[in-house]
Amino acid sequence: MSLQTAFLFDLDGTLVDSVYQHVLAWHEALTEEGIELSIWRIHRRIGMSGGLLTNMLLRETGLEIEPARIERLQRLHSEAYKRRLDEVRALPGAAELLSFLTLARIPWAVATSGRLETASLALEKIGLDISGVPIITRDQVRFAKPDPDLFIAAAERLGIDIAATFVVGDSVWDMLAAQRARALAIGLLSGGYGLDELERAGAYRVFDDPADLLQHIDELGARR
Amino acid sequence: MSLQTAFLFDLDGTLVDSVYQHVLAWHEALTEEGIELSIWRIHRRIGMSGGLLTNMLLRETGLEIEPARIERLQRLHSEAYKRRLDEVRALPGAAELLSFLTLARIPWAVATSGRLETASLALEKIGLDISGVPIITRDQVRFAKPDPDLFIAAAERLGIDIAATFVVGDSVWDMLAAQRARALAIGLLSGGYGLDELERAGAYRVFDDPADLLQHIDELGARR
Repeated sequence: MSLQTAFLFDLDGTLVDSVYQHVLAWHEALTEEGIELSIWRIHRRIGMSGGLLTNMLLRETGLEIEPARIERLQRLHSEAYKRRLDEVRALPGAAELLSFLTLARIPWAVATSGRLETASLALEKIGLDISGVPIITRDQVRFAKPDPDLFIAAAERLGIDIAATFVVGDSVWDMLAAQRARALAIGLLSGGYGLDELERAGAYRVFDDPADLLQHIDELGARR
Repeated sequence: MSLQTAFLFDLDGTLVDSVYQHVLAWHEALTEEGIELSIWRIHRRIGMSGGLLTNMLLRETGLEIEPARIERLQRLHSEAYKRRLDEVRALPGAAELLSFLTLARIPWAVATSGRLETASLALEKIGLDISGVPIITRDQVRFAKPDPDLFIAAAERLGIDIAATFVVGDSVWDMLAAQRARALAIGLLSGGYGLDELERAGAYRVFDDPADLLQHIDELGARR
């Protein structure tokens, strides 16, 4: 008997093409707070919890980590991101991949370090009816990625042993969180990370984007 | 007798933090032309000649490569980039590194796939008087990167054998062009490429950014 497979998806950079907008929105927020930080360093932090991200950036720059400043940065980022939302598109194959899984009765869920508010706006870009799909956002767990809580909560909502699932994400934080949750991690290059970064963080396989993953879906035991 | 060392610098992502703005400016230009392309795929092409970039993107998307369309895309990109220029900063250590070389009487030059118009705007961000420094732009050579012409022209302007120079860049196109020119390539992570991408493209060393390169400058035989 084979285990029931399920797929737990990250959102930004995995299903929607929004990483670069998030990167520049954080850069704008930090600049407004008078914090100068190179953009590639922000990129390498995208996908982890926003609170953790600001904590780490402030620690690196030697600035004081006061709750009021972190809150302000998160608000500025959220506003700057929403101004860029018009540019955000679903990634190639995202709708097709999710529709395939639904048709094949393979359970899937979304688990994102983002807040429900921004996540809903991004999910709309995919253009699917996802009313029956578990969407776990940062609001619902104590710790976001690289902690495993989001993926564990998603597997629980599906009623599936997390050790039987594939976690699909674009960032090293997804890969690390998947390992801690004892899931198999599948990396996608569509967030702009390098192949080796994902492999070193424990990716079981790496594909270009959702379209490329769908082309190789049989290799993951996902049969109709 | 040791060879005279010289440094040939790429500009975007190497001295100024402008890669992500270029990426989103290309994305905006392509979207305006009705061409949907994932942003990470654009990122991986930044640093090569703009003409080559549009050629390759059009070929990939199966669209016709007409000169008028390429010209329109380049104009749209240039306009979209200029709208983002306010966000562009010099990379950490860029001014210090170049000042060090000047003080140490180690020749250096800039060689960029960009046009003089946008390159001048980016160079201003560094805030140095560079009136005596050779700046080779795309306008001055037949082929930009990954062809070696820009770096060869820069070495000629310095009157130094290119085989004795270090080429410093952030993209695989810099590393590949350096190899073709028989220079040693030094990769910087500040353009957002992964370490392995630069190493696989032939990087002799890889540093974080200009500040990190300056910290290790003795290892490259650059002595005062």
